[in-house]
Amino acid sequence: MESENGTQSCETFPMYGGQGQYSYAQNSNHQRKVADVTKHIIRDAILEMLDLETLLHDSSDIIRIADLGCSVGPNTFFIVENIIDSVNLKSQSHQEHGFDSPEFQVFFNDHVGNDFNTLFKSLPMNKQYYAAAVPGSFHGRLFPESSIHVFNSTYALHWLSRVPKDIVDKNPPAYNKGKIYYTNEEKEVAEAYSAQFERDLESFLNSRSLELVPGGIMTLTIFCVPPDSKNGFEVLVNVMGDVLVDMANKGLISHEMVDSFNIPIYTPASEEVRVLIEKNGKFKIEKSELLFRLFGDLNQQPNAQTICTQMRAVWEGLFKKHFEQDDVVDEIFIQYEKKLAETTLFPFSKPSYKQLGGLYVMRRTLV
Amino acid sequence: MESENGTQSCETFPMYGGQGQYSYAQNSNHQRKVADVTKHIIRDAILEMLDLETLLHDSSDIIRIADLGCSVGPNTFFIVENIIDSVNLKSQSHQEHGFDSPEFQVFFNDHVGNDFNTLFKSLPMNKQYYAAAVPGSFHGRLFPESSIHVFNSTYALHWLSRVPKDIVDKNPPAYNKGKIYYTNEEKEVAEAYSAQFERDLESFLNSRSLELVPGGIMTLTIFCVPPDSKNGFEVLVNVMGDVLVDMANKGLISHEMVDSFNIPIYTPASEEVRVLIEKNGKFKIEKSELLFRLFGDLNQQPNAQTICTQMRAVWEGLFKKHFEQDDVVDEIFIQYEKKLAETTLFPFSKPSYKQLGGLYVMRRTLV
Repeated sequence: MESENGTQSCETFPMYGGQGQYSYAQNSNHQRKVADVTKHIIRDAILEMLDLETLLHDSSDIIRIADLGCSVGPNTFFIVENIIDSVNLKSQSHQEHGFDSPEFQVFFNDHVGNDFNTLFKSLPMNKQYYAAAVPGSFHGRLFPESSIHVFNSTYALHWLSRVPKDIVDKNPPAYNKGKIYYTNEEKEVAEAYSAQFERDLESFLNSRSLELVPGGIMTLTIFCVPPDSKNGFEVLVNVMGDVLVDMANKGLISHEMVDSFNIPIYTPASEEVRVLIEKNGKFKIEKSELLFRLFGDLNQQPNAQTICTQMRAVWEGLFKKHFEQDDVVDEIFIQYEKKLAETTLFPFSKPSYKQLGGLYVMRRTLV
Repeated sequence: MESENGTQSCETFPMYGGQGQYSYAQNSNHQRKVADVTKHIIRDAILEMLDLETLLHDSSDIIRIADLGCSVGPNTFFIVENIIDSVNLKSQSHQEHGFDSPEFQVFFNDHVGNDFNTLFKSLPMNKQYYAAAVPGSFHGRLFPESSIHVFNSTYALHWLSRVPKDIVDKNPPAYNKGKIYYTNEEKEVAEAYSAQFERDLESFLNSRSLELVPGGIMTLTIFCVPPDSKNGFEVLVNVMGDVLVDMANKGLISHEMVDSFNIPIYTPASEEVRVLIEKNGKFKIEKSELLFRLFGDLNQQPNAQTICTQMRAVWEGLFKKHFEQDDVVDEIFIQYEKKLAETTLFPFSKPSYKQLGGLYVMRRTLV
């Protein structure tokens, strides 16, 4: 079915599954903080904008919610419960006018390679919804037409569907030799990343606009940063780049393996996201907010080991796919932790507010 | 949510996951044969009985299908494709009257412990539906009210939600000392199994009657046997019972472990199923057929190794849960294969038609 809907091929890099030491389930505290920050904004958006009268106008009292890029939990459960609580709060006034209390069906979506077995085993015991999982790339179609009332995606859209083709084609000037990411100094590489993000966001919005019920809403929390600012994530990636080059220089991995490795993540500027959504035209942004978090809290000083483990939970699938051998991946993260402990560029060394991303609340435009 | 819906607690014994030597995916040829036998009956039932005009009367063109007890595939994909092809065939005449071609959403259901990761990785590339998985016991609620148009369950309802309580309570006369199953000679044990099956089927039907859209249909293929007949499955279980007693006598496992172990499977008579469905009253049986298969085909003589591997694919979760240690379970199946090779009671030693079960096509009764 995917090909019929014009979906581009994409690669999948699942978060570290299971419940073990390096698992995403045990190492997604930062992502939980993001969910905390967005909680009230999403609640207010549902109270203000969800058009329950239209949604429940026929005899069906089912509200269908989808969380896209859910990983293995537990943050997705927290996000979904907030949405349900908010809809219930909103529906109370409708119930006074004779509407029944809705039933909820929740679709947890991520790539086919995601550890859904762990997700299912972690489902809250007292959940107030019927749970389902939907495997597949959110850059393509996932649901029947007009079948979802509330879409959410938190911190997932910065994952590109693939490393931009130009970067790995050994075709100068965009071939990213000796680097694993883009910086603003390397114009062609940055442009290739940006163009891939645009294509991916376009595919995402086109699919969702067909799947969202008229009157429903979509809330997207996107990892985005101020333009030309050196963000914390970029520092973390560059340290990893240095580690890989060091290991290649020592003959532990080949230079070829480093040259052909690129992190398929793009952190747009908030304004860039807005322009792309408006250019696509399928959705109207009803509300947007920049999100901030205090990093370097004196009570919770992050250390190299914690950061290394958190990054590994997110990057595991990506590194395993490229470097293949478990012992090589283990060694990479041992070296990464050492290097993190040494770095002076470390962005979290003193308390400061950093931009986490942007939250966009959208409705379908009328066609 | 489960407790609110009055679902009884239940145990889960997943089929052997993954794609390896003992996996259900590689060892479910018999279940595939069952699906082959039912294919045309289910197609005819959809053509004759599915009320597409009622189902598609509002603006939604979505047909939702659920396969309950799907395991890890591949048989579930075959069953679902047959249902979709049949609905498409039926909908062609409606399209001439201005209906759109429907979109399909398929829900694959099994216990939380089922290997859904393998199921998702095995999904057909060219599938004509949106796939979702729903974890949980089909003895309780799984879907919102009136949300599924076609329910199917093939060869799953003989699994009881638990070993009957009386059997394991060390309470004579039903305590099943030195046995792992019921036979018709042990009246109290057989009655406890039968009563559990009745409770389970009742829970199943109550839940489905709420979830099925009016005008939809449910097709159930149930592993059932003629009353008082020594069926092939019973022989296979009794050989396993002998193996466990032998191992206890040799001190390899404790007698206590054998006494407390019981196979939570009940094979009703076809007439028993009909009486229970009518007693429940939530569904009307529109059509039922007994299913037969030629066993002992000279071209495909089953041998002890094949049968042992097939049974292990089905029983793995059950034995692992009770006996816990992998090496004990391995030894049990080594001994089982030896004993199967020796048995003279072997029911498949000459070609004959055996009853596979019964297929029941049902619609909701009007309330």
